[in-house]
Parts: sequence; C-alpha cells; structure tokens
Amino acid sequence: MYRKEIKVLDCTIRDGGLMNNHQFEDDSVRRVFKAVNDSGVDYIELGYKADEKQFDREEFGPMKFCSEKDLERVVGNTEKKCKISVMADIGRFDPGDLLPASESYVDMMRVASYIKDIDKAIDLVNTIKAKGYETTINIMAVSHARENELDEALHQVEKESGVDVVYLVDSFGALYSEQIAHLAKKYKSILKTREIGIHAHNNQQLAFGNTIESIINNINYLDGTIFGIGRAAGNCPLELILGFLKNPKYDVRPILEVLETDFVKLSQQIEWGYTIPYMITGVLDLHPRAAMKVRKSKNKDAYLNFYEKLTHEGNI
Amino acid sequence: MYRKEIKVLDCTIRDGGLMNNHQFEDDSVRRVFKAVNDSGVDYIELGYKADEKQFDREEFGPMKFCSEKDLERVVGNTEKKCKISVMADIGRFDPGDLLPASESYVDMMRVASYIKDIDKAIDLVNTIKAKGYETTINIMAVSHARENELDEALHQVEKESGVDVVYLVDSFGALYSEQIAHLAKKYKSILKTREIGIHAHNNQQLAFGNTIESIINNINYLDGTIFGIGRAAGNCPLELILGFLKNPKYDVRPILEVLETDFVKLSQQIEWGYTIPYMITGVLDLHPRAAMKVRKSKNKDAYLNFYEKLTHEGNI
Repeated sequence: MYRKEIKVLDCTIRDGGLMNNHQFEDDSVRRVFKAVNDSGVDYIELGYKADEKQFDREEFGPMKFCSEKDLERVVGNTEKKCKISVMADIGRFDPGDLLPASESYVDMMRVASYIKDIDKAIDLVNTIKAKGYETTINIMAVSHARENELDEALHQVEKESGVDVVYLVDSFGALYSEQIAHLAKKYKSILKTREIGIHAHNNQQLAFGNTIESIINNINYLDGTIFGIGRAAGNCPLELILGFLKNPKYDVRPILEVLETDFVKLSQQIEWGYTIPYMITGVLDLHPRAAMKVRKSKNKDAYLNFYEKLTHEGNI
Repeated sequence: MYRKEIKVLDCTIRDGGLMNNHQFEDDSVRRVFKAVNDSGVDYIELGYKADEKQFDREEFGPMKFCSEKDLERVVGNTEKKCKISVMADIGRFDPGDLLPASESYVDMMRVASYIKDIDKAIDLVNTIKAKGYETTINIMAVSHARENELDEALHQVEKESGVDVVYLVDSFGALYSEQIAHLAKKYKSILKTREIGIHAHNNQQLAFGNTIESIINNINYLDGTIFGIGRAAGNCPLELILGFLKNPKYDVRPILEVLETDFVKLSQQIEWGYTIPYMITGVLDLHPRAAMKVRKSKNKDAYLNFYEKLTHEGNI
C-alpha cells in the first residue's frame, strides 16, 4: 500500500499513559520519541495538555501536562523530524494558557469529543486553530451514535469548524469491517474538505484489520501505538501499520529497537491488550470500565460470571 | 452475520498440540471437548492420525495418534453433538489402518498438503472418502503459491477428488484482506461443487479480520481455536468467531468457562500468540520456524537483530 497522503500518528505515550497515570520513566519517553522520530512516522502524540489547576503533578506524570519545559526534556538535542501532537480534553484544559504555535514544541492539538459535546469541540478547535496549530476532532464512541445525530454533527463540523482532520474512533473495539467501511464513506461524503482519521481499539483483535479497511476506504490519518499499548485492550500496533505501508519513508527498525529496550519490561509492569473481559465488552459494544475493574480484582479471570453479569444486567 | 451454511471447526487441541507435542492433561482435553460440544460448534479437531510405527507414544501425547481408544477416553459418556475431525498427514499416516467411518468416533478427516503434493493429497482423500468419512484438503502456505500452479491444483482437485471442503490456509499469517478476498473468489470460481474453508494464522493479528473477510466472500468453513492457541502466533480465536456469528445455535458460555478453568494456566505453560518475532516472519511472508527457534533461545527478545538477519539473508 502506497498513498502519499497517508500520515501515521504514534500515540504510544498518550494512550499508554492512561494505564499508568502517565508515569513513564523519563528515559523511556525519550527513547520512544527518538524511535518514532527516526522511523519516519509523521506525528507523535506525547500526552495531554491538562489544566494544572485541576490535576496534580504528584499524581500524574509530566505527559499529563505537556508544558513546554516537559516537552523540551523529551526532545532534548534530537533533531525534530516528526510533528508533536497533544490532546486537549474539553473542560480539562484552559485555552487561555495556550502559546501561539510558533512558540511551542506542539504542532497539532487533538480534541476528543462525544457527539453531544460537538458544539464545545468546534468552539475549542477554532480557538486552537486561531493560534496556528493543526487540529483534529476525535469523535469518540461512534459505535453508540445514533445515525441522524452523527450526520448532523459531521455537517456542523464541516460548516462551522476550521478543523483539519476528523477521526473515526472505535472506543469500545466493537466495530466490524463492514461498519468501518460504512462510516468511512459517510465521513468522507459529508466532510468533503477535511481529512479523515482512524483510531481503533483492539478488544476483538480487529484494530489492525479495521485500520486496513479504513485505508481501503480513503482514510489517510492512521493512529497506532508500539506493541498496541493503550487503554484496556489497547490500540492498533504501530509496527504492523509500518509493515503494511510500502512508503519508503517509514523504517520499522527504530521501533523494533525500542520494543526490545522498553516494551518487554513495560508489558510486565502494566497490563494491556487482548484479554477475555475486554473481548466481552467489545462484543457487547460497552465501555471497557467494567472489564478494567474486574481485571484489577481477584475475579480477574472469572470470565463466565463477568459475561453473565453484563448480559443479564442488560446494560440499562 | 447469519448464514445457515456456515460451519465452525474448533482445532484447539490439534493446532495447540503442535506447541507441546500434544501432551495436554487428559482432563483438560475432556473439558475442551465438552465445552466445544456444548457450545454448538460444528466440528472439533482433536489431533492427528499419526502412524504408530513412525511416532512414539513416549514422546507424543495420545492426540498425536487418536486411536479409537484414545478418542473413547475423550468422549466418555458425553452425548456427542459435534462431529470429530482428525488430521492425516501425507506419509505420516497409514491408510491401511483405517476403519470404516461407521465404526469410528471420527466423522471427518483433513489432509494438509502443499501444492507440490496435491496428487498425493487427492489420492489419500479419495481412499479416506471411500471409507465413508467427510474429507477436506487444506492447501498450506498459499501465500507462497505461484498463481498458475495454484489454479492447476484447484482444477485438479475439482476434477479428480471426492473432497467435500477445500481450505485456504494462511500458514505464515502473511495475507492481507484484499489477498484473502482475491483467493476466496478464485477458490469459489474453480471449486464450483465444493465448500471452501479458511484457516488463518495470527502473526499480524489478522486471523479474525481475515476470517470475517472470508465470510463476506462466501467461505463457509471457519477454523478457530480457544484463545487463539496454535503454532507460533496461533490461530483465529474461537470466542471471537462465536461473538461475530449471530446463529442462535452457538453459545459462547461453555467456551468462556473452559477459558477460565484451563487456558489461563495453559498460557503460562506454553507460549503462543502475537509476539514480535512471529510478527516479523508474518510481514516477511516466511515460515515461523526461525521465530520459533529464537523464542526458545536467550535472544528471544532481540527483535532488531532478528529482523536484520532475516532481511539481510534475503531468504534465499
């Protein structure tokens, strides 16, 4: 597969940070940055721009905040080839603090939003865009969207926002390839002047397959994480995306190296990836919170009981 | 997805047995049999019919041989609802030993063959078919097949064999969905009077995605294994297939129960599933043997070195 418009975004440290309150070792973050930077991957998302008045640095690692000083410590003397992205959550981020893009390490800011908050997302994105940043809106939990509300939100984004990229986000890892194809076509047909992105979760081991399906359906922004690290079942493995794309600008070798130096150990310290409770919430199209809770309990492997509970409760 | 022609075949014990010389605990095999039998899955493949003159029961567990006595111990008093399948490898199995199907626990015999051995496979299948068994030919390593040789083999199977099902086998976990679709269409167009099956390996986490792609392309026989157990990166997880299919005859709950009682422990004893060396052989479309060797060595996590070695050797 070679299409020059395709951009790969690594969100290893950002999505992985949801599993450890962003408390990675500084050296590990630097090695991931260097690996992604050397691999030719287009963007690296390092974390959140969280409001320091709302969140405590005692509780969260620096990549929860991504201040210019935090980012300077990550980049160091490395010649920055990839662009840096951070995520801004509506209500957890103070846009008043934002430097102009020309004075920041940050190149792109991504706003994650449920459909019900799309007005706030558009407003926030337009503020950020005015400061000179590239922007995205990541519409979460699209598997729960009512079709007419989704259509309306997409039309509104196209009409009212200056956003560059709109992401299709399979938050629960619930979508099958035919649904991905249907949604990708819808996004493309309504958002005629924007790029579309895909952010897939791996509850049913479909994150990579659905990312390929997205590429086939003209989605150009692809999210991945090293060894699929991320919340709960994790994300689409970056190393698989690079193996699939034939663009010679990408080189998987720096990623293999950091997999070896950091991810063998990390996978023994933090749990992520395909496990049966996450598979069950994926199949049932539910938020993984119940599965995350059970994985931290002594009943972590009581699969049948977990399934019976979720299906009998009927998710009401 | 509901299509009444779809049949699911569980090969947990057969393909999983490649990782431990079929030395499962007897009780574990019985619990897997009972779970599959209760789940409504159509077939269970328990192992091989290996020639006892060539292979030693000291070295291999009973499911390498699947004598009637071995199978009797598995089935016990359980009311047999699923059909039992065993695999017969060309040259490792003596067809002279074969009972008529009516006197055997075995309902189906599957012959795995490379394209170069297709004449032998046809001959063996016709012998087995004459004894009253359902039969399949599983054409291995199709990602290495030359197109014209594959076409010729498929025409020959259609013309000369009495086989019921021909399997598309992605032995190296190398195929992407578009290639699966292309091959599925080819198989269907040449093998007009047979059913087609899919047996996928999970090197690139595409076993389930490619199985769905196969279903979309009218493949009706689907192989899966519990928790994806199988050689190297393993197979398509059975629990995911059952979650996808909407046929009410299938019930995932017995599978969740045996996952809990047996597979948590088993996954600590035997290694299978997505790991970086298997990913690398998948991307490079190579047999996993080099990856299996490295995973048993002290260099098991020397990913970059493994990749450099395979790519520099150029696989000649």
